Amino acid sequence: MEIGRLIILEGPDGSGKTTQIQLLEGYLKEAGYEVVRTREPGGTEISEKIRDIILDNDNSNMSDMCEALLYAASRAQLVSEVIKPALALGKMVICDRFVYSSMVYQGIGRGLGMERIRSINEAALDGLEADLTFMITIPYEEGLKRKKMQGTLDRLENSGNEFHKKVFEGYLDICKKYDKIEVINGNRNVDEVHKDIIKAIKKIKL
Amino acid sequence: MEIGRLIILEGPDGSGKTTQIQLLEGYLKEAGYEVVRTREPGGTEISEKIRDIILDNDNSNMSDMCEALLYAASRAQLVSEVIKPALALGKMVICDRFVYSSMVYQGIGRGLGMERIRSINEAALDGLEADLTFMITIPYEEGLKRKKMQGTLDRLENSGNEFHKKVFEGYLDICKKYDKIEVINGNRNVDEVHKDIIKAIKKIKL
Repeated sequence: MEIGRLIILEGPDGSGKTTQIQLLEGYLKEAGYEVVRTREPGGTEISEKIRDIILDNDNSNMSDMCEALLYAASRAQLVSEVIKPALALGKMVICDRFVYSSMVYQGIGRGLGMERIRSINEAALDGLEADLTFMITIPYEEGLKRKKMQGTLDRLENSGNEFHKKVFEGYLDICKKYDKIEVINGNRNVDEVHKDIIKAIKKIKL
Repeated sequence: MEIGRLIILEGPDGSGKTTQIQLLEGYLKEAGYEVVRTREPGGTEISEKIRDIILDNDNSNMSDMCEALLYAASRAQLVSEVIKPALALGKMVICDRFVYSSMVYQGIGRGLGMERIRSINEAALDGLEADLTFMITIPYEEGLKRKKMQGTLDRLENSGNEFHKKVFEGYLDICKKYDKIEVINGNRNVDEVHKDIIKAIKKIKL
């Protein structure tokens, strides 16, 4: 039986990842694939409990390393409980954020170092690699503006402009350093972005 | 100002760590020291929330690596919020369990490997080292018997005899491999064990 594919959507807050994932899921189902859609942090009962601790504004004194390790713990559960079993059954897995988010938010944004975060996450991934990552870029001011229009901000989103600027630059850095990444300009209307994603999806052997 | 000392009590479930920590705390206070007593997992508001997820019997499908990373996250918060600040103020810190517990329970008991767990925890410790570790040994059947007499068992305590046997052997292995460890026979009455601990405490320069 053929193994499934792991597709990641990455990008700053407000880049439109969630909308694009819904559209991509619809496209893949239309094309006859079984699709599992998940999100980070979260995606399993245990990971959602961890997510609640990470994003709770009450936990404002959380140490940066505690935050980084909680993300990795949540990911370890998601990988072993959801992603690996789904791929083994030949399904398409679409994930909202993955390791690059940790490398950018905790490695660059919090200043813990990208390599240190990558190494912690190697344990969580247990050999798993994404088949394709869409990096949806958007100027960070524009992304934050969109987020604020959607409602109240969580603990991470509330980390200030300087933090979000570093995150944005971290994403650009990731695009230069790693492969299997498709950079998509997210500062356009929804349909244009979706079309570019489908174009790239057609290039990988599904 | 002189820096404080970090003293760890380690040992299998039911080895009598908690009782011995109470006695040691009393002794040190009597001797004029300011003492901070803490426990793992837990010891801060955030770490206690993480502790609840780790020990909840509802989370029986938690992956081994998720468990290991949650312990490390809880520890990172304890180190940065409690232990390092207390040591910097010259206080004595006594901790119920620390990194060796992770190396033994997750590294050996869960089979993730001691070195892998040590490496994840290096990030959590951020350079911190214990000044003295008491390893209280007790045959694992005896420890479990004591625990059962105390009430219901948590998710870790409920992991079965084979797991606890591996944990016990892991502790013996740690004693051989690492230094600054004082091995104490815990299978005796409370006063005898306490006297041995005080004897060892007097040997380190407080």
